[in-house]
Amino acid sequence: MNWKLTLSYDGTDFHGWQVQPCHATIQGELFSAIERITGESVLPQGSGRTDAGVHALAQVASVELAAPIPPSNLVRALNRTLPAAIRILNAEHAPPDFHARHSVRAKSYEYRIFRGEICPPWLTRYVYALNWPVDIDKMQRAASFVIGERDFTSFAATDPDLSTRESDSDTPQNNIRTIFSSSWTEEGDLLIYKVRGNGFLHHMVRNLVGTFLDAGRSHIAPEDISTILEHRSRPAAGPTAPARGLFLNTVEY
Amino acid sequence: MNWKLTLSYDGTDFHGWQVQPCHATIQGELFSAIERITGESVLPQGSGRTDAGVHALAQVASVELAAPIPPSNLVRALNRTLPAAIRILNAEHAPPDFHARHSVRAKSYEYRIFRGEICPPWLTRYVYALNWPVDIDKMQRAASFVIGERDFTSFAATDPDLSTRESDSDTPQNNIRTIFSSSWTEEGDLLIYKVRGNGFLHHMVRNLVGTFLDAGRSHIAPEDISTILEHRSRPAAGPTAPARGLFLNTVEY
Repeated sequence: MNWKLTLSYDGTDFHGWQVQPCHATIQGELFSAIERITGESVLPQGSGRTDAGVHALAQVASVELAAPIPPSNLVRALNRTLPAAIRILNAEHAPPDFHARHSVRAKSYEYRIFRGEICPPWLTRYVYALNWPVDIDKMQRAASFVIGERDFTSFAATDPDLSTRESDSDTPQNNIRTIFSSSWTEEGDLLIYKVRGNGFLHHMVRNLVGTFLDAGRSHIAPEDISTILEHRSRPAAGPTAPARGLFLNTVEY
Repeated sequence: MNWKLTLSYDGTDFHGWQVQPCHATIQGELFSAIERITGESVLPQGSGRTDAGVHALAQVASVELAAPIPPSNLVRALNRTLPAAIRILNAEHAPPDFHARHSVRAKSYEYRIFRGEICPPWLTRYVYALNWPVDIDKMQRAASFVIGERDFTSFAATDPDLSTRESDSDTPQNNIRTIFSSSWTEEGDLLIYKVRGNGFLHHMVRNLVGTFLDAGRSHIAPEDISTILEHRSRPAAGPTAPARGLFLNTVEY
């Protein structure tokens, strides 16, 4: 039986999604929990890999299990077995050809920035606390320049091995992705970047945010984003924003 | 110059308030930060000691410093030096006789219980996730029986050394405290107990919550709280609720 699992996690205390020897990872914890519950040693496949410190509101994983276990029992058993920082929100039977990564049609991320003077201790794991003023209108304009089908080489991690390794969609091994929406919203002391696209390269959202912040500080002009994209070169773009502000929000199939 | 510091902290990664050799504590971190900033080795006094895992929205500490530093600079310098899990919200000059513990007139705590089916990973450090149904009306009634001036021996930690050590007010060394308000409120999936009193014994709020939960599960009747108080014996009351749901909210002077 093929399964579709939807899960939420606080990535702070994990070395990212992908299973690693000697390090706690989301995929590794899920593998161990499934093994403890069903006795089956099978590695669940995620919709994509999230980096160390990156969180998920609703990551999706697929896994093939022989055990005939009712979905609600599987949810309960997994949540009893997994660390509290990883929660299974839903488990459902999926068609045999469903694959959490291959079948992705769109993904949404959000990046949370805290702009207040003093960041509450309960938010520090989940936001990037900014210490300088930014011009939101400029960041908004900058964000609009990435909408559409574009080559995001300038916003991909430079290590070519890493870039391929972490590419989270099954589109051809190039750096062309389509962004459907890209904008900033303000919610109290939070400044939130929301982006939806058909796929994302390694570090892409964090590199976009770091570059939009350069626009917000007037280090670059909003329209420079177009030039940066044309360069197809990582050094053309801005710094990588910290992992802790990033959330994988939804995966669409 | 005598100072009044107001601070917020996530107690999860600390061994409580009180300075300890070889363990990170809130008081120890504050001591080190003050020493690094001013060169002065002085131990700040808290309004009371919080246990390992207990949080504070607005703990108060007093400390005597010789350094002539403007309040806003002290706040900034401390927040730059302290771990992000501890934030100084305010620093102000206080009268020479002000002492964070001796001068307390009232304190408020709240205890947060999560009752939803699946506890979001970002709440697990800050709530007690309940796995059984409770009758809130019974818990509300039970909570009303502790209002007034009463002997709270039944709700104090049994270790006599601990009980005295952690007693957080300067009222006489007995177990009589006055509770001004004590009630439960519901906020979405959260069930919150709020209590305000002139002082609290070691583990007192957590023991009250554990006992109110016994009433909520009909293990005891709400009016049994009166009998439990009369017993003046820890075994008469219910279990100690986990530290992670407890917040020191405000300290009044």
